[in-house]
Amino acid sequence: MENTKRYIGVFDSGIGGLTVVKSIVETMPDENILYFGDTAHVPYGTRSREQITEYVLNDVRFLSRFDLKAIVIACNTADAIAKDKVKELYPMPVFGVVDPASRKAADSTKNGKIGVIATNATVNSRAYNKEIAKYNADAEVLSVACPLLVPLVENGRFRKDDIVINTVLHEYLAPLREAGVDTLVLGCTHYPLLYDVISSMMPDVNIISSSVAAAEALRNGLEELGIFGEGACGERKYYVSDNAEYFEKTALVFMGDNLGGSVSHVEID
Amino acid sequence: MENTKRYIGVFDSGIGGLTVVKSIVETMPDENILYFGDTAHVPYGTRSREQITEYVLNDVRFLSRFDLKAIVIACNTADAIAKDKVKELYPMPVFGVVDPASRKAADSTKNGKIGVIATNATVNSRAYNKEIAKYNADAEVLSVACPLLVPLVENGRFRKDDIVINTVLHEYLAPLREAGVDTLVLGCTHYPLLYDVISSMMPDVNIISSSVAAAEALRNGLEELGIFGEGACGERKYYVSDNAEYFEKTALVFMGDNLGGSVSHVEID
Repeated sequence: MENTKRYIGVFDSGIGGLTVVKSIVETMPDENILYFGDTAHVPYGTRSREQITEYVLNDVRFLSRFDLKAIVIACNTADAIAKDKVKELYPMPVFGVVDPASRKAADSTKNGKIGVIATNATVNSRAYNKEIAKYNADAEVLSVACPLLVPLVENGRFRKDDIVINTVLHEYLAPLREAGVDTLVLGCTHYPLLYDVISSMMPDVNIISSSVAAAEALRNGLEELGIFGEGACGERKYYVSDNAEYFEKTALVFMGDNLGGSVSHVEID
Repeated sequence: MENTKRYIGVFDSGIGGLTVVKSIVETMPDENILYFGDTAHVPYGTRSREQITEYVLNDVRFLSRFDLKAIVIACNTADAIAKDKVKELYPMPVFGVVDPASRKAADSTKNGKIGVIATNATVNSRAYNKEIAKYNADAEVLSVACPLLVPLVENGRFRKDDIVINTVLHEYLAPLREAGVDTLVLGCTHYPLLYDVISSMMPDVNIISSSVAAAEALRNGLEELGIFGEGACGERKYYVSDNAEYFEKTALVFMGDNLGGSVSHVEID
């Protein structure tokens, strides 16, 4: 049988989903990845449900032009709001970030108190509350919307000694510290870059990255479906709906080393 | 002659243009204002020239459905990038923010050193450098891109005692203080909310709000064209491309008191 090239289609509102790509590459370096970042409409996290759904369906429509074996919604906001709609409209396996992170949090909490930090839209959707309840009906979930974290991270303010990120995070995390959560979900794909700052503020708390959890769940899912490694040759391609140059520059902050593939601009409206 | 109702069409990428509306209302309370905030595509300041131009032309197309006597581009980014295109395509008088603020800065500097703070896109466009040179060929213009100020202002972090806005502004303003500018243009319609913090950091500097300058220039322009007060009855209407509710909530921070009119959602794509 010929090993036709097949892709995992990963999308995000912009650049944050690259932390998911990074985790996928670490877990499954041979899988081909097509990434779409909707940089013409970023950010999703402050927009309405209707608007987010419209943008997500455009993103998936673009990716579905390629031979995909799976779709990964690498944006907590998009996943929280529009995953059901994507599953309804597309026959291929759809993976997200909210479900894997919820499962890990539900499994790992000892005192039943789980904190979630995320965008406004993700918090308002109550997606984490619903998913965590599926795995641990007794868990108490406290969510805090953190609208400033995405712009701060994108502007490089995620270092431990930066008073700006420290002050802002200190305020956002205060209710979670007071409530005594023993587990904290980083419910936005930008937040893994804040891991060091957050863990220094909450040293005894189990911090769960939705990006890492998503890559683990994807690998398990592909194996279960018998398509792990199928058509894989380690190819990576990136598409963005606004200028490719700015994306490329910021992308390295998220990917750690090189992107491993070209970035192209594409009109999707 | 019947006094048919006519409007001043004001638009912005989102909510910042309300500081221009506020200044217009203070200067010309009787003029009818139609405001459009492109909240489905906000922010413009981090996007490419091509993308910004496309969004601006959609904004103007929407406003041009009404009987307008003038258009006001109440967004420095949109004005810096796409004003010429709007003037080329629409026959009505088009007013902006960059030209009036440039003129005021050029006229008021004593030492010929003018600072400009603005979004990435406005700074990259060099629109302020070009406009200021028209009025004062010898002036030295130093521009600093301040990508974090819009999200900080929108999240209410513009108080004098807030260490976050103080730290971020301190860094952004450092090169301007070192250069010894005697005049500073607030080249983004969000920045008037930072007037107090900035003036406490640069007490001897003449601070020019592009929003106030725009309203003054609009009034002069309408008087010169003989259409000041024409068809005016103090009506105000607001339209936004995403959810009206969030806009309404944040809007009061910018307008000071009430909006003086209803907010409606409209699809413009």
